[in-house]
Order: sequence, then structure tokens, then C-alpha cells
Amino acid sequence: MLRSHTCGELRLEHVNQSVFLSGWVQKSRDLGGMTFVDIRDRYGLTQLVFNMETQPELCQLARKLGREFVISIRGKVAERSSKNPKMPTGDVEIIVDELEVLNKAKLPPFTIEDETDGGEEIRMKYRYLDLRRSPLRRNLELRHRLSIATRNYLDKQNFFEIETPYLIKSTPEGARDFVVPSRMNPNEFYALPQSPQTFKQLLMVAGYDRYYQIVKCFRDEDLRADRQPEFTQIDCEMAFVQQEDILNTFEGLARYLFQEVKGIDIKEFPRMQYSDAMKFYGSDKPDIRFDMKFVELNELTQNKGFKVFDESELVVGINAKACSEFSRKELDALTDFVKRPQTGAKGLVYVKYNTDGSFKSSVDKFYTPEDLKLWAEKMSAEPGDLMLVLSGETDKTRKALSDLRLELGKQLGLRNPNVFAPLWVVDFPLLEWNEDTNRYHAMHHPFTSPKPEDIHLLDQNPGDVRANAYDMVINGVEIGGGSIRIHDRGLQKLMFKHLGFSDEDAQAQFGFLMDAFEFGAPPHGGLALGFDRLTALLGGSDSIRDYIAFPKNNTGRDVMIDSPSPVAQEQLDELFLQLLKKK
Amino acid sequence: MLRSHTCGELRLEHVNQSVFLSGWVQKSRDLGGMTFVDIRDRYGLTQLVFNMETQPELCQLARKLGREFVISIRGKVAERSSKNPKMPTGDVEIIVDELEVLNKAKLPPFTIEDETDGGEEIRMKYRYLDLRRSPLRRNLELRHRLSIATRNYLDKQNFFEIETPYLIKSTPEGARDFVVPSRMNPNEFYALPQSPQTFKQLLMVAGYDRYYQIVKCFRDEDLRADRQPEFTQIDCEMAFVQQEDILNTFEGLARYLFQEVKGIDIKEFPRMQYSDAMKFYGSDKPDIRFDMKFVELNELTQNKGFKVFDESELVVGINAKACSEFSRKELDALTDFVKRPQTGAKGLVYVKYNTDGSFKSSVDKFYTPEDLKLWAEKMSAEPGDLMLVLSGETDKTRKALSDLRLELGKQLGLRNPNVFAPLWVVDFPLLEWNEDTNRYHAMHHPFTSPKPEDIHLLDQNPGDVRANAYDMVINGVEIGGGSIRIHDRGLQKLMFKHLGFSDEDAQAQFGFLMDAFEFGAPPHGGLALGFDRLTALLGGSDSIRDYIAFPKNNTGRDVMIDSPSPVAQEQLDELFLQLLKKK
Repeated sequence: MLRSHTCGELRLEHVNQSVFLSGWVQKSRDLGGMTFVDIRDRYGLTQLVFNMETQPELCQLARKLGREFVISIRGKVAERSSKNPKMPTGDVEIIVDELEVLNKAKLPPFTIEDETDGGEEIRMKYRYLDLRRSPLRRNLELRHRLSIATRNYLDKQNFFEIETPYLIKSTPEGARDFVVPSRMNPNEFYALPQSPQTFKQLLMVAGYDRYYQIVKCFRDEDLRADRQPEFTQIDCEMAFVQQEDILNTFEGLARYLFQEVKGIDIKEFPRMQYSDAMKFYGSDKPDIRFDMKFVELNELTQNKGFKVFDESELVVGINAKACSEFSRKELDALTDFVKRPQTGAKGLVYVKYNTDGSFKSSVDKFYTPEDLKLWAEKMSAEPGDLMLVLSGETDKTRKALSDLRLELGKQLGLRNPNVFAPLWVVDFPLLEWNEDTNRYHAMHHPFTSPKPEDIHLLDQNPGDVRANAYDMVINGVEIGGGSIRIHDRGLQKLMFKHLGFSDEDAQAQFGFLMDAFEFGAPPHGGLALGFDRLTALLGGSDSIRDYIAFPKNNTGRDVMIDSPSPVAQEQLDELFLQLLKKK
Repeated sequence: MLRSHTCGELRLEHVNQSVFLSGWVQKSRDLGGMTFVDIRDRYGLTQLVFNMETQPELCQLARKLGREFVISIRGKVAERSSKNPKMPTGDVEIIVDELEVLNKAKLPPFTIEDETDGGEEIRMKYRYLDLRRSPLRRNLELRHRLSIATRNYLDKQNFFEIETPYLIKSTPEGARDFVVPSRMNPNEFYALPQSPQTFKQLLMVAGYDRYYQIVKCFRDEDLRADRQPEFTQIDCEMAFVQQEDILNTFEGLARYLFQEVKGIDIKEFPRMQYSDAMKFYGSDKPDIRFDMKFVELNELTQNKGFKVFDESELVVGINAKACSEFSRKELDALTDFVKRPQTGAKGLVYVKYNTDGSFKSSVDKFYTPEDLKLWAEKMSAEPGDLMLVLSGETDKTRKALSDLRLELGKQLGLRNPNVFAPLWVVDFPLLEWNEDTNRYHAMHHPFTSPKPEDIHLLDQNPGDVRANAYDMVINGVEIGGGSIRIHDRGLQKLMFKHLGFSDEDAQAQFGFLMDAFEFGAPPHGGLALGFDRLTALLGGSDSIRDYIAFPKNNTGRDVMIDSPSPVAQEQLDELFLQLLKKK
């Protein structure tokens, strides 16, 4: 027998029982006549005791155990004389009678402790050692708990989990596909799914009504810090529903997960129009853990001789409560922050509303205290507050002020990762203009339905058409999104036309879906939640990599298995492929 | 509101309630002043009534509804005068007050009924219509139920579901990989996993102890009737276990699934040595729903002048109980059956043990009734039985007799798909000789551990080395298999050597695993169950395609979406790939 109990299980009630434990040597200490060894497994740590006087051979053997050796012991549970209240098993120890070394271990390249001394790169290469550390183990356990809870919630709501194929068809719309050459169909390719979108819609046409899947998706994009080429979605679709049905169902899921897995009771999600999110937070994923809403100041700032504001499309500020005593240095740092290339503001105007009621601003030359008083009133600023104002072209200015707002929120401790503030952002635009391709692209995807009352705008003002589209946002992170879909062939065709598809291209790529719409397609819609991100969020982190067992690095490599890698010439021959040298 | 109830929900208790239903028109009948429409959704059928006298306009509209139109109605539940006991909703009907056509439907290319008139090909092309049929809906529901039950069972047993990557590394061992060209690492490729084998082993090294995953796997093989390029496994691994722990855990899972999903109580699984399975059933996946064991007759058949038997390595028969009255024609058909190329026997010897105690055989020239009496005794044949005997080279003869045994079992009605006879086949050989490559291959895979007591045979008699490997077999179908793995670098290296790897190749391809074994790898093992096949089996079918939402055809094509397909030249350019023409 290799174990009768786990290393996290034994308590005072087990005293005098004979037990078998197996696990890894966490650490050992020689104290004169005694050797203490902590043995570790997934479930915890238990202290083993070897006595030099009564069992000298065994104790000698124990003294030779190195860190991370795999051992198996038989022994008797005893009450500790000095208990350790920090360990769940801290009331007991095991007086060992037999010890077997199941496998030796070389010295690990970094310490297997909660706080390790290993750098990112070495920990990725030896991921199987990094995964031994408790923080990562807790992350993967959280992920497991979330997936079980998600499935049980959706099952109770009559959703079926239905697997959709991984070898599908490449389409040029959206992000870049990973492709898979077909040997049986030479010179043809499958694509790995960016999402099961069309398949879940076909399941609605097939009458499945409530579908979900926790499923891997793939995007061949240049990776940013927190992107992975393969990622996991909770993918869902419902038929015979309106937008509210979907929002309520998945708000229910999210609240259930918070309750079930974190023990946190989340209130009803507020709903915010996309236009309001942009106006008041400068972002379609506002962090509403804190207020600090945008206030537009154009009316109050014009024609006072300050050319910068006079020539700006938008003058907009935020009120940093109780920050009027920010130092010159702090204000300079904020100015530097908004001038970073990724934020891109030209400068930052500040107005201190001092506790004595006076004002001190970087634009005192142009605005009188009376002017600034009006600003303060509009921004609900009180003595002791600090007003920060940006100006320029609307979209860019909002984006920059959003960056500043989040940075200030961080500095002021308003973004506690253990506080959760979810909301729905609704009524997204259907289309967005793309400067590079010089045409409109679908903001969500080409299957999103326009609001019926806006369809008439499609020809004249396509950018003004709102979609039946919504995002779930928590703590400033887009956790997921979805839409009510088009279920009518004519409207879908019109949509493809507006996205620049020729009729032939639309038919070649999505003909199967448009054909399906002619055989009795029900009204339907759905959403997809980013499972990696959701897990990281509930774990109180913003790094998804720590919540994925075997992630890839920023160049898409798995440095542990050293992949991707060259393949044999015969494999290429079978696929009728030839490699070209990169110039 | 699109629906207040489903189409399978309404009963007498709902009479007089006002309800909203949505669904598809299953059929409609005009009976003079009344029109009856059956409306269908995933949950059932409900009868709608339109009255020409009281609501002529509505009734006219109803008369125009075609099959598979999507409609939504408001109406009042009424008790039927003539009830339909075959329908769960057959006690009631809905007197319709409002009718909306949500979407029209073209006439489907085949009937959406339990028994359809559509051929395989057209049903694959319009899979979303085929999936509307109840038998397929029940199959996918069964699949969903099985996956939920599997997860809940394993979760209760402390297994974590941990996702392993889909973009991994190509290795030449085993079946052919699907490969995925990397754009960010030009001229290098990922491979799609044939199984998460090495990753689950690394999770054991990482201390996760009990891992599972319901996961897609990929093999680029020439497809046989019941193979798919992508298939789903219940993939599991455990550490600190011996073979019995694994067998008991997953026998427990299988019995739980039968109980939970089918309401069937399965007894303990018998365990059969691989050598016995081959000796008594001629197969490593014996169908033990019926007996008809092989009986070897070499001793009783030699030196009687029948050269065929004298020169055979093996003479072996089965006893077909109560079949002595088989006609000439029936016996000829069996002979033709064993002579088919895929079975490959040269002929079939029969011995009728007539009800009057006499014998009639195809070898009466060589064997006296007394000789045949001895055969009968050895085969436990009684008057009325039919003995069928094959001879030749051992492996081929066993395979042929196994085919014959299964065929007879089918003809005699001994293979009821609703009777389930599982077993474990254990102690598989470690290696098998491959004629094509002229070397030994791993019978399971290169990570399977040899039995310690057999390791000394590796050099002299590699074919005799038994492995700690086991298969779960139900009704003659291999549902899954696994092994205790090697967890020692030296033994793994030795194994690769015996499989013809150079040290360099072994290190290049599996170095990460062998390295991991040096950092404290625990004893571990696991198994994988074929989820498609398990579902089909529990559904009482042997066609996995009917249990997959969107299967591919025999050339690996998805005919619905028309994939694989050519990709754009720019895509190839980005991947530094050039297509070669197939000669």
C-alpha cells in the first residue's frame, strides 16, 4: 500500500493509528537525536519524526533525504508536544517505522515555496516544478471548481454541453486562423476555431435551444502580455429568447459562481449603455469599483484665451477626491503618465481646490477663481479635491483620461482585487470604421443583429447603427460578450454586403449558415465568457498565465516541450508542402 | 414573451391557463372547421387548435403554415376530448388566440421523423436538420448526461479537471500527427495531440495526484468506417497507485455511469489475462455476453490421416449450442464467412452432434464416431450441438475463429445491445513485432512500464515481456485502456532503446519528460476511455457518428461546411509555405 491517508488529513483523532503516507520531502531538520521531515502532497504537509536512539538505521536513511525526494512511509500517529497552529495537521506527527525512497530528486533549479526564487523563464521551462507550488495549485483547483460549478448550473437550467468540431474551415473575417493542412485532401486546409460561433448557431437551427461548451479556441495573433494563442471559453447560445433572457441567465451564472466558489454575494448587475460607458468612463469596460466619473467641461472652458481648450473637440475632467495636497512631483508623474506613447495625451491640466477654499491650477493665467469655482461645481468638487483635465479629439482624450482614472484608482487603493463590481455594457455599435482597411468591420462579429429600429441607418450612417450586443464587465475587465444573432437570410446577406463581402464570397464562406436560416431558424442569441480571465479575476489576479497549467510564452512557444519545432521531411511530403526560407 | 412553457410541459393541471409556446411546425391537419397543428421543440410536441368558425382569420393563417416553420403562439390550455396516451402532453391542446410566424422554412430535403427518408449523404450535408430528429437528440442528450455524471463522479473522488494544451509537439512514435504551421516561428510546426499523455504524466510529477479531462484528440489516419480524425477521450491519471487502484476507480466510474444514466446495475468486472483472452476468445476484446469459448483440439486430432490438421500449429473449435440442425446452406454460408479475405481461413470443419447421439461431420473420412465423441467431451458438446473447427497458424486461426464466434453470436441473438458485459483484460505484452518496420513497437505506448519480474527478458525475448497494461472491454468493444507508467529515467531510456530510438532522438523528442523524472517523479498510471464509443455503446449502437454532433465523413471532410478547403495565398505567404501539386 502506498498510502492510507493524504498528507493533509491527519488530526488528533488519528493518534495511535498506523498509517501509510506518500509524498515529497518539503524540508528536513536534524535536531541532535531527532530528525524531522515534512512530507508534502497536494492535500498538505505532515511532520515525520525519526529517532536516532531507537531507530538509528532509519534515522540515518532519513538524514540522506534531499528536497523533493519522493518517499513512502509507514508509521504511527502521535500527538506533538509543541503544536503548530498554522498547519492543519500541526497537532500531530508521525513516528516512522518504515521508509522507502520511491524516487530520488535532483536539486530543483528554484525553491518549491510560495515565494520562489526562480525567474519567469526557468519556471516556464520547468513548469512541472513550478506547478508544485501552492499558489499555482490553488489556481488550478479554483479553475476546476469553476468549471464544475459552471456545468452544474447550466445543466440545471436545461443546457446541453455539445462538442463542436476543432477541425473547421478558414474564413478571412476576424482574427487570423491557425490552419491545419489536410493529407487526405491535398492542398486543402482545416482551420482551428476562433470560436464555435457558426456551429452553435446551427445547433439553434437544429432545435437544441440551450447549448453550452467549455471549449478551447485559437487565434494566431501577435501576442500581447496577457494573450495566449489557445484560450478557453464558456460558450453559450439560447433560442427563443430576447436580450434580457440572456443577460439574466448569465448574470445568474456569474452570481452563482461567486457564491459557490468564493462565498461572495454579488448584487444585481447594473446595465450601462455603451455610449454612457464611453462618456463617463472613456472605456467600454469601465471599472466601477470606484466612481470618479468623467465630467465634460467644454461649455465652461471656451473663449477665455486658452487656445488648447478652445481648439479641442472635448475638454473633460475627473475629480480626484481629497487629493489637493498632491506634490509638484506627484503631479509631474501624472503628467508623464498621460504623455506616455500608449496613452498619448499632450499634457495635463490640474486644478487644486485647496482646503481653504482657494484654487491653484496650471491654467491660472486663463481662468479666474470664479471660473474654476464653476468647474468645481460641475464636477462636484469640494475643498481638498483635485481636478484633472484633458482635452483634444474626443476618442483619444477619453481613452487617455480613462488610463489616468485607472492609474489614480490604483494609486488611491480604490481597485481592491477582492472587491468585485460587475456590470453589463449594452447597445454597442454594430460596426466600427477601420482606418487600415478603409471599411467598416463588425464590432462583435458579422452574425450580430442590428437593433430593428436602427436598420434604416445602415445605408446613410452605418456607424450610428446600434447592435443587440452586450459585454459582461467585471472590475474593468471584459469577461465576455455576446449578442442576439441574425436569423434571417436576407438580413445576414445585407450585413455581409456592408462588411465588403461580394455575394460570391459570402456564399462560399458562410453559405451553409445562410442556407440553414431558410429551413426554420428560430430567434437566438448567446454569449461567450473568457474562462482564463474569469478564473484569474476570481483568483484576484490579472495574469491569466498563472491560471493555465501549461501556457505559452510571448512568441507562442512552449519552452518546456520546446514547441513548435521542425517536422520530418516525410511529413511535409505527405502533406504536399514545401517550406520557404524566411528572408 | 416568446414562451412561458416548453412544448413538452403542459398537462391537465394547466387547463385554462394562458400560455406562450414557440417551436417548429411538426405537422398540421385540416378537419373541416378545425385545423390542428403539432408544435415541436426539444422537449416535446403539443397540439394546437384553430377554429374556423370562431377565428377564421387565424385559422386561415394556420392553414398556410408549412412543415418546419418557426412559430410562436399565445393560447389557452384545454382538455382534449380524444386524448392521445402516446404523447406526454396528449391530455391537452391549446386553443390559439395569437399566432406569429417567426421564420418560414423551405421544404426540408428529407422528413424530420424518427425514421427519415434521407440518405446518409444528404443528412450529413444538412446535419442541422438531421439533428432535429428525436433519435439524434436523444443521443446528444445521453452524451451530455454522461459527461456531467463522469465529472461529478471524478470530482467527488478528488480528481481535478486540468486542461492540457492543444498546440503541442510532433513526435514520430504512434499514429500520424496533424500539424499546425507556426507563423511566429517560421518553418516550425505544432502538432495536435493524439492524447495528452506526456502532459498528464507531468501533472503527476507536479503533484496533482488525480487528474482527468474530457478532451478532444486527433489522429491523421486513413479513416475506417468507425473512426474520426478528431475524437473525445475521458483521460485520467493517478499517482501513488498500483494497478488495482486504477482498475477499481474506473470500474467504479463505469458502474456509476450505467447506474446513473441507464439505471442498470452492473456487477463487478471480471479480470482476464491477455493470454487467456487470446486462448479462449481469440481476441483481446472478448465479447463475454455469451460463452462459446475456444477449445484447443490438437491432441485429439493428430495422426488420423487428416493432413490439414496434422500440419496445423493450432486446431481449435467452438461449440454452437443447439445448432446441430443447421442446414447445408447455413453451413456453407458460415464457410464462406470464414473464407472472406478479412477473416482469411482456408476452410471450416463442422461436426454435428445429432440429437439421436450420432455424429455427422465434414471429416468423417478421417475421424470415427469414437474420435468425435472425444472432441465432444472436450468441448462439452451434447446431442443437438454443432462443433465448428478451424486450423492453421495460431494467431490467424484464433482471429478467424473469433470472427466466426461473433458472427454466430449475432445470428443466434446472443449479442443483445441492451445487455452489458464488461471486463478488464490485463497483462498485455509490452511490445509487438511489426513486420513492416522490422522492429518491436510499443503495444500501448512507449511510457508503459514492463512488469518488474519480466524486465530481465527484455534483451533475449522482448516479445515475452508483459506490461502493467489493461483494457476496459464491454460487449467486445475496447472502451479504453491504460497502464502503470515508467517513472524512472533509466528505465524510460532503456525502453526507447528497445523501440529503436537513438539516445539523441529520445532526448530531442522526450527529453523534457525524462528530465522531469529526475526531479522526484512519483509512481503513477492511468487510463483513457473513448468517450464517443462509450456513449454509442450505452446508446445501444456501434456507430459513433450518430453520437457526435458534427462528424466528418470517411475522407475526413465536413460536407456541411465544406471543409477542408483552399486558403488564401496571403495566408500561405505568412506561413512561409508553398503548395506542391499532387502527382
